[in-house]
Amino acid sequence: MPYKPANAFESPRFTGIRTFMRLPYLRTLEDVDFLVVGVPFDTAASVATGQRFGPEAIRSASILLRPYDLDLGIDVFDYSSGVDYGDVMIVPGYLEDSYERIQRDFATIAAAGVVPIAMGGDHSITLAELRGMVQRLGPVAVIHFDAHLDTWDEFFGHRYDHGTPFRRAVEEGLIDTGRSIQVGIRGPQFGGGDIDASRALGFEVLTMAAVRRLGFMPTARRIRERVGSGPVFISLDVDVFDPAFAPGTGTPEVGGFASHELLTVLTGLAGLEFVAFDVVEVLPANDPAHITAVLAANVMHRFMALHAWRRRAEASAETNGEGQVSHVGLER
Amino acid sequence: MPYKPANAFESPRFTGIRTFMRLPYLRTLEDVDFLVVGVPFDTAASVATGQRFGPEAIRSASILLRPYDLDLGIDVFDYSSGVDYGDVMIVPGYLEDSYERIQRDFATIAAAGVVPIAMGGDHSITLAELRGMVQRLGPVAVIHFDAHLDTWDEFFGHRYDHGTPFRRAVEEGLIDTGRSIQVGIRGPQFGGGDIDASRALGFEVLTMAAVRRLGFMPTARRIRERVGSGPVFISLDVDVFDPAFAPGTGTPEVGGFASHELLTVLTGLAGLEFVAFDVVEVLPANDPAHITAVLAANVMHRFMALHAWRRRAEASAETNGEGQVSHVGLER
Amino acid sequence: MPYKPANAFESPRFTGIRTFMRLPYLRTLEDVDFLVVGVPFDTAASVATGQRFGPEAIRSASILLRPYDLDLGIDVFDYSSGVDYGDVMIVPGYLEDSYERIQRDFATIAAAGVVPIAMGGDHSITLAELRGMVQRLGPVAVIHFDAHLDTWDEFFGHRYDHGTPFRRAVEEGLIDTGRSIQVGIRGPQFGGGDIDASRALGFEVLTMAAVRRLGFMPTARRIRERVGSGPVFISLDVDVFDPAFAPGTGTPEVGGFASHELLTVLTGLAGLEFVAFDVVEVLPANDPAHITAVLAANVMHRFMALHAWRRRAEASAETNGEGQVSHVGLER
Amino acid sequence: MPYKPANAFESPRFTGIRTFMRLPYLRTLEDVDFLVVGVPFDTAASVATGQRFGPEAIRSASILLRPYDLDLGIDVFDYSSGVDYGDVMIVPGYLEDSYERIQRDFATIAAAGVVPIAMGGDHSITLAELRGMVQRLGPVAVIHFDAHLDTWDEFFGHRYDHGTPFRRAVEEGLIDTGRSIQVGIRGPQFGGGDIDASRALGFEVLTMAAVRRLGFMPTARRIRERVGSGPVFISLDVDVFDPAFAPGTGTPEVGGFASHELLTVLTGLAGLEFVAFDVVEVLPANDPAHITAVLAANVMHRFMALHAWRRRAEASAETNGEGQVSHVGLER
Amino acid sequence: MPYKPANAFESPRFTGIRTFMRLPYLRTLEDVDFLVVGVPFDTAASVATGQRFGPEAIRSASILLRPYDLDLGIDVFDYSSGVDYGDVMIVPGYLEDSYERIQRDFATIAAAGVVPIAMGGDHSITLAELRGMVQRLGPVAVIHFDAHLDTWDEFFGHRYDHGTPFRRAVEEGLIDTGRSIQVGIRGPQFGGGDIDASRALGFEVLTMAAVRRLGFMPTARRIRERVGSGPVFISLDVDVFDPAFAPGTGTPEVGGFASHELLTVLTGLAGLEFVAFDVVEVLPANDPAHITAVLAANVMHRFMALHAWRRRAEASAETNGEGQVSHVGLER
Amino acid sequence: MPYKPANAFESPRFTGIRTFMRLPYLRTLEDVDFLVVGVPFDTAASVATGQRFGPEAIRSASILLRPYDLDLGIDVFDYSSGVDYGDVMIVPGYLEDSYERIQRDFATIAAAGVVPIAMGGDHSITLAELRGMVQRLGPVAVIHFDAHLDTWDEFFGHRYDHGTPFRRAVEEGLIDTGRSIQVGIRGPQFGGGDIDASRALGFEVLTMAAVRRLGFMPTARRIRERVGSGPVFISLDVDVFDPAFAPGTGTPEVGGFASHELLTVLTGLAGLEFVAFDVVEVLPANDPAHITAVLAANVMHRFMALHAWRRRAEASAETNGEGQVSHVGLER
Repeated sequence: MPYKPANAFESPRFTGIRTFMRLPYLRTLEDVDFLVVGVPFDTAASVATGQRFGPEAIRSASILLRPYDLDLGIDVFDYSSGVDYGDVMIVPGYLEDSYERIQRDFATIAAAGVVPIAMGGDHSITLAELRGMVQRLGPVAVIHFDAHLDTWDEFFGHRYDHGTPFRRAVEEGLIDTGRSIQVGIRGPQFGGGDIDASRALGFEVLTMAAVRRLGFMPTARRIRERVGSGPVFISLDVDVFDPAFAPGTGTPEVGGFASHELLTVLTGLAGLEFVAFDVVEVLPANDPAHITAVLAANVMHRFMALHAWRRRAEASAETNGEGQVSHVGLER
Repeated sequence: MPYKPANAFESPRFTGIRTFMRLPYLRTLEDVDFLVVGVPFDTAASVATGQRFGPEAIRSASILLRPYDLDLGIDVFDYSSGVDYGDVMIVPGYLEDSYERIQRDFATIAAAGVVPIAMGGDHSITLAELRGMVQRLGPVAVIHFDAHLDTWDEFFGHRYDHGTPFRRAVEEGLIDTGRSIQVGIRGPQFGGGDIDASRALGFEVLTMAAVRRLGFMPTARRIRERVGSGPVFISLDVDVFDPAFAPGTGTPEVGGFASHELLTVLTGLAGLEFVAFDVVEVLPANDPAHITAVLAANVMHRFMALHAWRRRAEASAETNGEGQVSHVGLER
Repeated sequence: MPYKPANAFESPRFTGIRTFMRLPYLRTLEDVDFLVVGVPFDTAASVATGQRFGPEAIRSASILLRPYDLDLGIDVFDYSSGVDYGDVMIVPGYLEDSYERIQRDFATIAAAGVVPIAMGGDHSITLAELRGMVQRLGPVAVIHFDAHLDTWDEFFGHRYDHGTPFRRAVEEGLIDTGRSIQVGIRGPQFGGGDIDASRALGFEVLTMAAVRRLGFMPTARRIRERVGSGPVFISLDVDVFDPAFAPGTGTPEVGGFASHELLTVLTGLAGLEFVAFDVVEVLPANDPAHITAVLAANVMHRFMALHAWRRRAEASAETNGEGQVSHVGLER
Repeated sequence: MPYKPANAFESPRFTGIRTFMRLPYLRTLEDVDFLVVGVPFDTAASVATGQRFGPEAIRSASILLRPYDLDLGIDVFDYSSGVDYGDVMIVPGYLEDSYERIQRDFATIAAAGVVPIAMGGDHSITLAELRGMVQRLGPVAVIHFDAHLDTWDEFFGHRYDHGTPFRRAVEEGLIDTGRSIQVGIRGPQFGGGDIDASRALGFEVLTMAAVRRLGFMPTARRIRERVGSGPVFISLDVDVFDPAFAPGTGTPEVGGFASHELLTVLTGLAGLEFVAFDVVEVLPANDPAHITAVLAANVMHRFMALHAWRRRAEASAETNGEGQVSHVGLER
Repeated sequence: MPYKPANAFESPRFTGIRTFMRLPYLRTLEDVDFLVVGVPFDTAASVATGQRFGPEAIRSASILLRPYDLDLGIDVFDYSSGVDYGDVMIVPGYLEDSYERIQRDFATIAAAGVVPIAMGGDHSITLAELRGMVQRLGPVAVIHFDAHLDTWDEFFGHRYDHGTPFRRAVEEGLIDTGRSIQVGIRGPQFGGGDIDASRALGFEVLTMAAVRRLGFMPTARRIRERVGSGPVFISLDVDVFDPAFAPGTGTPEVGGFASHELLTVLTGLAGLEFVAFDVVEVLPANDPAHITAVLAANVMHRFMALHAWRRRAEASAETNGEGQVSHVGLER
Repeated sequence: MPYKPANAFESPRFTGIRTFMRLPYLRTLEDVDFLVVGVPFDTAASVATGQRFGPEAIRSASILLRPYDLDLGIDVFDYSSGVDYGDVMIVPGYLEDSYERIQRDFATIAAAGVVPIAMGGDHSITLAELRGMVQRLGPVAVIHFDAHLDTWDEFFGHRYDHGTPFRRAVEEGLIDTGRSIQVGIRGPQFGGGDIDASRALGFEVLTMAAVRRLGFMPTARRIRERVGSGPVFISLDVDVFDPAFAPGTGTPEVGGFASHELLTVLTGLAGLEFVAFDVVEVLPANDPAHITAVLAANVMHRFMALHAWRRRAEASAETNGEGQVSHVGLER
């Protein structure tokens, strides 16, 4: 592949400029299948701020990553070429300007057919990402992993906040809600109607309690059924994990996923038609041992592997002359 | 309800003086169903000290709480009015004086029929709380969640220490031991007879290993059977959680509850006649990411919801003319 | 005095809700000479964010304060009554709305003749504070302690940022620049013309190097000469201190004041006609040992003492029938 | 027993010099059954360094330990005498010299028939430990708990690194690979052939995914079957735990064991003929709440209990005239 | 000398059990000139607790020390033999019992003519130390370095607290107040009369402002004049340093000594007849970078050098047949 | 200039990959006057390790830098072009291999006439840097700012350690000792002869005490006199600063420079013929508030400004036809 990480047998992983996974830092879309991009925006965060340093922390932690995904049984760079695209030049303190810049960059990326793996930033960035991709991709299915619904309407008289992006996105027609699902919801709510409101928007909602009742691989199966075929976007707020596993976030919610539990769910999603991913709400100021950043980097690695899996399957399908990608062998 | 938290859609949760959950700070017992009270005492701690800053840390973390309990399906403030009562004015360095002040405040609270949710402080405060409540309530059942038995007899020739409160309380006739139970015991012991000694005092003891063998909802059922009807006090030492979930404590013990596991057990206790609660041994100095404080705040939220559930059930029972509160619908 | 701190010989300083210096938490302007108010706003911060938690951290540290100022030789509460007024209900993520709310509260406070001692929040809040006070007080002299000029014009095409408030305030006619001075400027600049631009706005600028050449008490003298008589506002960015003394800030600048050096300068300002004070840019996420919050609390204590000194002098002047307040005895 | 910990009812656990578990600090092998020894070496660490402070941190945390193992039902010091032997005098920066010194100390310990419980240091120390023990014990079975295989061949042209000790040990004939097993392997690999290479060396490999499929007590059974009779060495890298439970390490890998899960596996190994143990890769710089050190201390406590269990069984076997040690009663 | 530190050219400083400066850990008074002893007591602390871990932290930091004092020009172990005596077995939570144990140990040490260098613990331990030494030494001069007077009378109706030891000691006749002095007093006071009260007890008080006016070597001279000949005890609360230099303490007070300033004062005290020293109020929980512990260790090193200087001078005086120790060469 | 930092008015300083000061990351020597290069090596550190993460931390902190040096009155990029050259690919755990790679890179840089500003890493890297530069530059004058002499001979029988580089360099003829000076030496020594040994090697030694007696600008003058004309290398160990200002290092030594004091000395060195610089021993694990990294970045900024000053002076000299560079205007 044209672009892949530096070789850890030749140069120590702690040397050099911190790009994601020691990928080349290139602002190009040529010969690129996926890219990693930072969106260091935290102006819409409602409680703690500092998520703008999320991309730096994740890049720093990502030096630990290696190319082969053991659970999916695939070497990412056998099937895809990737770069660290740097950051979106957001405008701190100004939501609309920042959204425009995110939208513009994502439109460009989508237009080139490249799959972005974004690092937030607060969760409001997902709205702008979706706006950027809609022209090329149309409304997409969203698999939304989060402790919180993020479908509230307004805070303090304002419609943009990191608690509202999914309502806005539905209103703007960016999401194919009939194929979308929210997973991991838990903790105290503003009211008993919060989940109903999300469902009223068209989302399926799997609370954390529901996930535990189902089990993790069956949860993946349920998600796959919901999503079906067509373009899919995974948006993962790190507070979907329990604070023990991801303390470094602004609105920690106890009772969440253990890391292996959610990584298992992600494994079970192999074969879907992923067009974009993001990991948001990493807050380094609350992450003294860096384990949230390490976990976010590993989630992104799984995203890369899901993307590679899809490319392998498509290549194989083309070779086989089949019209549909199977996911044989998925459930090890 | 007369007293409830500030509305998070109107004022940001990070603004204002840090009271628990942004409840009004009022030293009143009128129009109050439950109150939150700090007991910032750590003179009886045997290893690490600093638990006197537990209430401050929990109040700070509690800004994340919202009124509706998703697992119990109840809005706390639909059924109960609550305030932040401030702290007991303990006397640092002096056990007996401090116990007197705790006892006095708890006697006053109990006399008014208000349910206290206390935040320690080291675990020795529970003895004084029980002393305060006995006049009004008589001996109560205690559900004691802890990694440690806290029924030792003496340390260094002294009878008061955070390792002895439950022996003292039994000796003083404050606990209805036949209805009481210790849950979560684990880790290295002083000797093989430690648990036997606790049982000899009348407690049932469920070790952590026993809880795992049983499962979490069945553990709740076992506790309910033990406790039966009559007044109940839950005393929860945060070291009952695994250090991964609650590092901020003075005597961490590996192998404990995950947060969702214990919250599940608590959910399963809905319907009991709770007269008081405490959460003790939060030590902010060992809690760099604040997750212990966040967890303690959520445990207190569950306590509030258990109290509200009971009030709803009682109200309904009164309406129905039934003599006994049922807990229909508990096991979702 | 009607309102003063809780007595530390009667209740331990670590007990109770965290108000500033354990002053009563009251949203009143009656019988109040000064008040402490939090402005937890950080949307305009250009590098690190999280200053919205500054007021909480300073309140927490302020439990260490005691009423008598040793350097000025005055007991604050012999001459003034003060409360903790709580926080301005800012709107996170929205500059203009937040400025309006700050302006409104400060207009109310100024109208009542009460002296506010504000805790930021990022430095952009000073603009809104000045807007609030101008109606009652007219343009005021500003003594601006800071490592940075904060008189730049725009960032990323926007006029509001924590690097621009003093330019905006001059443009809006809120500052009596001929009586105003910037003190402590140092470190790498955007260009050689930065200081010239500030001087062109009318400010006198004393770089840190200049302060060291002058000495600290002579610096105070120079400031007093500049300010003369008339209303004065001290706005102090904690990055005016060296990072060794105030690490907890977003744009630390090496080579700054030691704590005793700047407190000496403040002592030397006794007798001026202070109408308001603020301390801004405390960032708890960078303050692991809390020393920045402790220092900010002490700076605010000095502000309280300067206010009390002025009141004593005015009272004495009234008694003496003199028309002018002297500052005899200042230079111990 | 001649040597046992200080009594915690007589002297507070936080008093005195920090030896492991407050055992006597004695560089003797007489009247000693097991000893704790630090190997503060980190020169071979490939990413983060600072493991040389591991022994200090574990000793500090070990004050919390008490003599009786609740899961195995045994008081360690009823059956064995132990000391804190201090540290191997390694040579920082020099691998070969350090290995010689470790080898020499372990040869002496093994020659005396004493069971060492070593605290690293990086994982490369295990090679030197095995070299030291081989003369007396011959090749031993190794139960290797780790997220990583540590059987790579070279890094940057060098054969010694904390990623290669088990390959070197096999090459040098120090390990009875047919009785050895690697447990807990997970996370991104350098390539799909990494595990095959380890198996080609003779190891059985149980990935973390395989362990979860099996369950924890069955995993212990599988290990016991693999190891059979004969001398056994447990080498445990703390990164076998999930970062939530053991953040303080240099190459954290998400998705690992919870503390109770691995302690259960260890419990299930009672009865094997343990000749040595080590716990490696504790990195205090990444362990802000000290929970990794606490966990490592508890793992060592379990090692002590496994050793005591074996001694009890042997003593009983001698009494009974049986030739084989049974492990009746193991699976509580 | 019989007892001295391990040689840092032979064994790395980070290896081995943490005794002070790697001195032998011996509970002996034979062949010993000075000893280091921990007093891990914090029950009398009025605000933050956790000083019981001070000795552990100081021992850990002391591995950096080397034998030769550059400022005094003396190798400590050319003139004196020293050991780490371990800790006083205090009784946590019980003031009087703990004071008795401290008193007993210090009486034994004093009786043997050995000079103790104690590490606290909160400042109340100094009272017990003085009680222990008075029988052998009579009332001693005290050089008290502190931000706070510690001569208050009572807190919450109790006479023992870390704010009262020097008043108690005067009342009990343990201090030769006419030769004693308090240095470094600063910060907000309870009232204007606090310092007067201390002076009324007989102490000379040098505020921090007074020290700065005088200069540091002249301050030493003033102290020497005050103390004159006869036994002297230096009691140093680390909060005498500015929080920038010593953040790790419970009642930080801004505006204090820089480390080199106070070390200069100590250098200037060479030649006095030191009979004991203590360093108190190190609170590791507030010392994330360990610099307070490093500073305390260096202060203790200076104490050791002052002791060695005196021994050299006495030896020389004996040789010269002079009756008086001179301090020629002191003011480099 | 061809290469300069990103414009902070156009893109926020916290966006993008972390290169030093947001300079372009280019491994080129063309059109480059100076470069920043990391040397992430810590294998030779004698106490704490982890300095390999120094370059990452300094790069992260350097986003705060701006182009114009206020004290020297110069915009760095008016006179020089610079890049971030990345890191030397050192070999962790292997001194000689690592030294070879450092030497090779520095030889290449020196051959191109580019001035390197290196970030360590432990101090042993300076030996390898000097080896690399000697072929092109011959022996250079070294201005060595450090708390420690680093001229010891051996540790544990080995000649390479971060305590020996300057002895080795003298032995290898890499240093023009007659023009070299060590500044800031202080703290406990191994023996009274340590400084004599350094002087015997030819160095002038200015202890910290001597610097304080002289004053800071006079110290600069003394250094300039010593160095005279000819190539100069500044090697600065961050432990030359007091731990209050630079806690993030492995062998902190109390009593050191305040940041402004040493920056003043550096200012006073303008006009010397600088050929290289390094800043070493930044240890992020001990730098919780990042102030050491911020200070190191500012020291490097001053280095850049000294280099630019020299270039301006040379340019001016060429224009003026003078043979010698003057430093008119230096002492503001």
